[in-house]
Amino acid sequence: MPLYLGIDGGGTKCRAVIVGSDGAVLGRGLGGPANPYHGLEQSLKSIRTATEAALHEAGLPAESARRLNACLGLAGVNLPSVHQAMLGWQHEFEQLLVETDLRVACVGAHGGSEGAVIIAGTGSVGYAHVGGKDYVLGGHGFPCGDPGSGAWMGLEAMKHVLLALDGLAETTVLTEQILAHAGTSDALGLVELVARAGARGYAKLAPMVIASAQAGDPVALRIVSEGATYLSAVARKLLQYAPPRMSILGGLAPRLVPWMAADIVDHLSPPLEQPEMGAARLAMSTFAPVSRH
Amino acid sequence: MPLYLGIDGGGTKCRAVIVGSDGAVLGRGLGGPANPYHGLEQSLKSIRTATEAALHEAGLPAESARRLNACLGLAGVNLPSVHQAMLGWQHEFEQLLVETDLRVACVGAHGGSEGAVIIAGTGSVGYAHVGGKDYVLGGHGFPCGDPGSGAWMGLEAMKHVLLALDGLAETTVLTEQILAHAGTSDALGLVELVARAGARGYAKLAPMVIASAQAGDPVALRIVSEGATYLSAVARKLLQYAPPRMSILGGLAPRLVPWMAADIVDHLSPPLEQPEMGAARLAMSTFAPVSRH
Repeated sequence: MPLYLGIDGGGTKCRAVIVGSDGAVLGRGLGGPANPYHGLEQSLKSIRTATEAALHEAGLPAESARRLNACLGLAGVNLPSVHQAMLGWQHEFEQLLVETDLRVACVGAHGGSEGAVIIAGTGSVGYAHVGGKDYVLGGHGFPCGDPGSGAWMGLEAMKHVLLALDGLAETTVLTEQILAHAGTSDALGLVELVARAGARGYAKLAPMVIASAQAGDPVALRIVSEGATYLSAVARKLLQYAPPRMSILGGLAPRLVPWMAADIVDHLSPPLEQPEMGAARLAMSTFAPVSRH
Repeated sequence: MPLYLGIDGGGTKCRAVIVGSDGAVLGRGLGGPANPYHGLEQSLKSIRTATEAALHEAGLPAESARRLNACLGLAGVNLPSVHQAMLGWQHEFEQLLVETDLRVACVGAHGGSEGAVIIAGTGSVGYAHVGGKDYVLGGHGFPCGDPGSGAWMGLEAMKHVLLALDGLAETTVLTEQILAHAGTSDALGLVELVARAGARGYAKLAPMVIASAQAGDPVALRIVSEGATYLSAVARKLLQYAPPRMSILGGLAPRLVPWMAADIVDHLSPPLEQPEMGAARLAMSTFAPVSRH
């Protein structure tokens, strides 16, 4: 009986799922970071770890890896050189398919159907797969891209706090909250804590920014409105490709929806499955033996 | 006869000047990066290299280093831990004074007098030394701080170009110029080239932004106006400390002045000496034997 492996790999972790030929989940596993653009060896290691854990949970021996028809959905493989490097992997699977993290997230969100997704977490990006074609909007990364993302909101908030500490902008509740979060009243300490951690350091401020916007803080309101307006514009452009379904994904999605344009919110459907399940579905549709009646 | 060494150290290079007790320049030298926050050993090496070159130009043997009364003006030493590390250096000078790069730039700009400076290069910062006290505005670094700086202008321009490439903002002449500079019409290639180089990669776009603003490009106009408005606000705040003189320094200074507020431009005086000369002046005023009449 053929086995299918779906992998969702990103900058912080890697999730694996193994399904049988009927699509039933046999096991799941977790691994470390798997963005091959930021580290090929680490990514391969994380994919192996997650796969072994999923095999274990499925009650299968580690040697069964060679029975797996795998689809890896990975961040970074939109770069041709990274995609090539992944395809050059001397893997032990039966067969291997390498897709972007966006594609597998979209397939998962729509249960195998075509559609569009807006992702709002540490970064932000819009993606549609319609008529067999890919469309990507944004996702250029921190700090030049990804408006509406957690890192972007945190950066905008930090810019304001630093102006306020210099007496060049008004101090608001958000200013106080961010300083309290950093445990300092000093710009040097704040920058040291937040900026040194890069995109993730800034993204940690995003929940405070959204909560402050809900409480009416004028600075937070400006930031969240601007971010949500951008994400709505991305969604509106994706809708031009007539995706059968559209979902918003990512850690900030539930909190951002209330700030998005009403015409967009009307088009949003809840995501159906996780990205790794989307990868498993792609493995099935690509590698499953054609049934003969 | 006592000798004085002035050092101006920053992220890309280090300049040294040796002066005699009458303040006459005896020799100058250049070294590599000297920001001890980003590398203590490299900074010490760069300071030694610049000093040796200055001794050589002064016609003095390398052993004369022990005759030097030195003042180092260094980026990064505003952080107490970095300042301590520099003071712990087993140097070979006669005496050592460690000051910030801002202080020595300000002393140099005003020929030894107190005053204020606005610095606009890759980063931006405002600084005043009045009544023996230091005042710093901004200078928090890329990407959260330094509005009006080269890196900030480049980042703002990149944000717009990426929106334009996605069809989410208008394409202007600046968009075309930046793509031509990067030799690509593709967002991935552009981000790879500009963003990978960090603050300096973005700062390389700044001259294009300013030139486009002069040519009336609406996006460039918005960016340069916003940056210059910030720098004018910084200057206005520094003027509250009643500095006897104020100058604008840094690679972008000449091009930004026409965009600054008229009331600020009226207060600007040309810088008189280089930062390393400011450092040498501080060494003289600190270490010179008190003359007795």
